[in-house]
Amino acid sequence: MGKTKSNVSFDVVIIGAGPAGLCAAIYFKRAGITPLILEASAPGGTLNKTHKIENYPGYQDGDGSTLAFRMYSQVEELSVPFKTEKVIDIEKENDDYVIITENNRYKTSYILIATGKTPRKLEATNAGEYENKGISYCAVCDGALYKGKDVIVVGGGNSAMEAADYMSDIANKVYIVNRSDTLKADEKEKEVIKRKNVEVILNAKVKKVIGDKEKVTSVILDNNEKINTSAIFVCIGQESNAAYYQNLSLDSDGKGIIVDDNMKTSCNNVYAAGDSVSKDLYQVVTATSEGAIAATNIIKKIRKSNG
Amino acid sequence: MGKTKSNVSFDVVIIGAGPAGLCAAIYFKRAGITPLILEASAPGGTLNKTHKIENYPGYQDGDGSTLAFRMYSQVEELSVPFKTEKVIDIEKENDDYVIITENNRYKTSYILIATGKTPRKLEATNAGEYENKGISYCAVCDGALYKGKDVIVVGGGNSAMEAADYMSDIANKVYIVNRSDTLKADEKEKEVIKRKNVEVILNAKVKKVIGDKEKVTSVILDNNEKINTSAIFVCIGQESNAAYYQNLSLDSDGKGIIVDDNMKTSCNNVYAAGDSVSKDLYQVVTATSEGAIAATNIIKKIRKSNG
Repeated sequence: MGKTKSNVSFDVVIIGAGPAGLCAAIYFKRAGITPLILEASAPGGTLNKTHKIENYPGYQDGDGSTLAFRMYSQVEELSVPFKTEKVIDIEKENDDYVIITENNRYKTSYILIATGKTPRKLEATNAGEYENKGISYCAVCDGALYKGKDVIVVGGGNSAMEAADYMSDIANKVYIVNRSDTLKADEKEKEVIKRKNVEVILNAKVKKVIGDKEKVTSVILDNNEKINTSAIFVCIGQESNAAYYQNLSLDSDGKGIIVDDNMKTSCNNVYAAGDSVSKDLYQVVTATSEGAIAATNIIKKIRKSNG
Repeated sequence: MGKTKSNVSFDVVIIGAGPAGLCAAIYFKRAGITPLILEASAPGGTLNKTHKIENYPGYQDGDGSTLAFRMYSQVEELSVPFKTEKVIDIEKENDDYVIITENNRYKTSYILIATGKTPRKLEATNAGEYENKGISYCAVCDGALYKGKDVIVVGGGNSAMEAADYMSDIANKVYIVNRSDTLKADEKEKEVIKRKNVEVILNAKVKKVIGDKEKVTSVILDNNEKINTSAIFVCIGQESNAAYYQNLSLDSDGKGIIVDDNMKTSCNNVYAAGDSVSKDLYQVVTATSEGAIAATNIIKKIRKSNG
């Protein structure tokens, strides 16, 4: 901490620049309050890892990264300060918070956590050794590396079907491996399984990943079937990104941070929105709505305390 | 009723094609369930009456009607049946409902009410000519257009105070014009009148709107006082569009239909979303989110009942 610069103060810091954080930034700025946005990587969050967005009303141009770019452009046009800095820790300082990144310390009265989630890992022997060597969580990001190859998609939800859909245009063959006997994806998303080069394997888990240390070459399923594959796209859900704010000891459950109807967490002046919260529906439309609700409630509180 | 045709059956009928209804339609159709949409006028709802939309993430093209058109196009591409028919009544028929329009009767298991609200209009000479030319019903939507200008807020309730509060950070001066001698808003909300740039004018009504046909320039009050202003935010309440479903006797309060977290109303298999429900934040992003949540919960119930 000796290396970090002195505190810069903000009314509110938004951590995470996915749909929830970006929408909140729009609402803050339009209300005359300038938030700081801190984002560890590119703005857009999981939108950047989504091949096609077909259920965001008003958006008909397909890919997630274009929608991400448009949302970010709006925020940029409003001159909202945006820093590409990873948050390492959050400390309480009297009634305020200090957000600590690798390079800076930012003092703030209010925090909006909009950090989303990270993909759940494959529970299989050796899986850890093949991260980025064949195991991927994003077909849109890594799919092109497996042109003409055989690949596996693990999972049965919409994101698994989207990955299979994307890969079936690129790969030679796509296996969908799902632990239960039904694919829980939407009917429309499930249409991919009718494709000639897609094969569904139900009631199966990947037991062991096999490779030559540099790349995946095959997997063994728990029914002892062996499948030759160059890649494993893991689409079995997501976990909260919230490890670094453990100092806040926010109430959470298996799905995420617990918030009330105003998107307020169990901590004073700390709000959360988007995929990082515990809720029933994880979608772009719910994330933007929650960002707007959180921002509106923080705005009311800031104004009240300003008299 | 002798004139009406025989019943046509649907799993779900969406009444109203604003952002909530259109988003729900996208979610239904992608889940393999085809809803019927009934809309009395043009698709888009209040979007069509909104001059500029600057707070819908990903949408940077300004006017509400273009966004409305894009949302409707998506639904049209999914081949969702859409009828421009005004709903006159709803009858219960065993476990189902019969929705009666001027020309037809539609039988349905589930209803999603997304009929929105209409703001009460200003009773003033010429007011009709300045809709979207300075007369607005939404400070959060249109307020940013009047940065540094003088504006009037008409009304004395919470929504008027919220509009005044919002505008006092943006505008040069905010006049609150209220017909009676007391502001009926909550004390907390009324704190806005202490602000330096807020002036309250009691026992007054806007008698005449003056402008250059393109935009409002001033108003004459019924005490003949003239006030120069660029905008008139009319916050004198809203009227539910829901008169026709009185047969359902849905629980409601002053703000709208009461729903639970799943957007379910007090009536079996009847859901509501968007501006027609009782809530704190009436925005495009909240409407689409509620449409998606309502649809997702109805889909779950339909799937369960189909086994």
